[in-house]
Amino acid sequence: MPNKPKVLVTGSSGLIGGVLIRACSDAYEFSGLDMAKPDSAPDIPTLVTDVAELDAILPAFEGVDAVVHLAADPNMHGEWDTVLHNNFITTYNVFEAAKRAGVKRVVYASSNHAVGMWELEGPSGRIREGDYSGLEPGGFKMIDNTVQIRPDGYYGIGKAFGEATGAYYSDNFGLEVACLRIGTVSRDDDPKANVRMKATWLSHRDAAHLIERCLAVEGLKFEIFYGVSDNTWRFWDIEHAKNYLGYSPQDNAQDHWPEG
Amino acid sequence: MPNKPKVLVTGSSGLIGGVLIRACSDAYEFSGLDMAKPDSAPDIPTLVTDVAELDAILPAFEGVDAVVHLAADPNMHGEWDTVLHNNFITTYNVFEAAKRAGVKRVVYASSNHAVGMWELEGPSGRIREGDYSGLEPGGFKMIDNTVQIRPDGYYGIGKAFGEATGAYYSDNFGLEVACLRIGTVSRDDDPKANVRMKATWLSHRDAAHLIERCLAVEGLKFEIFYGVSDNTWRFWDIEHAKNYLGYSPQDNAQDHWPEG
Repeated sequence: MPNKPKVLVTGSSGLIGGVLIRACSDAYEFSGLDMAKPDSAPDIPTLVTDVAELDAILPAFEGVDAVVHLAADPNMHGEWDTVLHNNFITTYNVFEAAKRAGVKRVVYASSNHAVGMWELEGPSGRIREGDYSGLEPGGFKMIDNTVQIRPDGYYGIGKAFGEATGAYYSDNFGLEVACLRIGTVSRDDDPKANVRMKATWLSHRDAAHLIERCLAVEGLKFEIFYGVSDNTWRFWDIEHAKNYLGYSPQDNAQDHWPEG
Repeated sequence: MPNKPKVLVTGSSGLIGGVLIRACSDAYEFSGLDMAKPDSAPDIPTLVTDVAELDAILPAFEGVDAVVHLAADPNMHGEWDTVLHNNFITTYNVFEAAKRAGVKRVVYASSNHAVGMWELEGPSGRIREGDYSGLEPGGFKMIDNTVQIRPDGYYGIGKAFGEATGAYYSDNFGLEVACLRIGTVSRDDDPKANVRMKATWLSHRDAAHLIERCLAVEGLKFEIFYGVSDNTWRFWDIEHAKNYLGYSPQDNAQDHWPEG
């Protein structure tokens, strides 16, 4: 199929990279950028280098229509030094390289951990522990894209940094930026690993669909969305993603738990 | 006078450091930390070292009650590499050193530039250019501590990073943190350098008073305040600082302009 949009995926060898590329290769021509390309990685042209080296990554951005920036140390408990190298510097590099190459859009994998301290309070603080007493699904104020920044670690600070950098590149250079505060994506796509996932699960197919919507939507400037399936006990807002992007999640963690 | 609170000022040789130390030495026992100590710097015990070296700065935090963190490259147009070194890494180091030494409170010099893109829109976008047509002083929505992060440069991204880091250290380690989104402080303390200062001026005595209130207020956890004098044409909220801190600015840029 000719003229498929060209999309560079940073962290293309990682979990979400593989999910996206396998699900959407009919519609997009993917290329990759990652620090390694193991045999399990998607079979796409991939530049293997340290994303913390700006000059080294620039060639991967030439001729690309959009970038999905997933490359990061995914350890939410990461220490400062590793987060600084693998999340801060890499993320600056990706926005800067996209700007220099004239890329139109960046979909940035932010995280709920940019505002993770809010989750510990109120209804979400109980739901995440499996305590639903006196609560109705959806019958409380969701944590949404307007809450103030309250990271729960250096990883979360790094994600807040990425959002701030994305806002700057959007406002000042016209880069179109969607930030996804992604919930819990697991390798086996099973939301029963812990009770918090009843709230926070983002299934593989919902993740691929959400990123695809961010690539396809018209008129984007800068937006923040939550990435979570349509879980009965979710405490993050997905109305903004539904209304703005046409996000239509198919999965609900509740359907996978024994009590239905 | 015995038992004055011990306050470490980072960037003690800089403009605001000098203003604070000269104004408040009767009430606080100041020490300094800076990359240099020229003859014009306050005559206080000062550790001279690169604040980007964590191990080197730790001794300055021992036995200190509070830290006023002013050290940074003050160039709002600074490029990424210098902001990364002089603003990001130094600011992480200061919060981390304060935590390790058991310091109770950090007053952090943030900046209006963390959210500087809002200023370009609406009434503030005209006021900053000296166009007051159809506007009443205070008769419009002020930019306040709840607006979303929209930096206007790497400097502003660094200030947003400092606020996020302060929130994390407050939430997780009990450090008391006040962030001041400081307006325009000038060496000659004259608000007539440009028309924007009619809105954004923070006089020397109001700056010292505001920082002193942040050091003295009881019950602080994490707060963000604007640092601006009581200017007729200000577009930043100071009600939060007045109500929470007892901030009582004495100056108004309008009084210094020829038309009164």
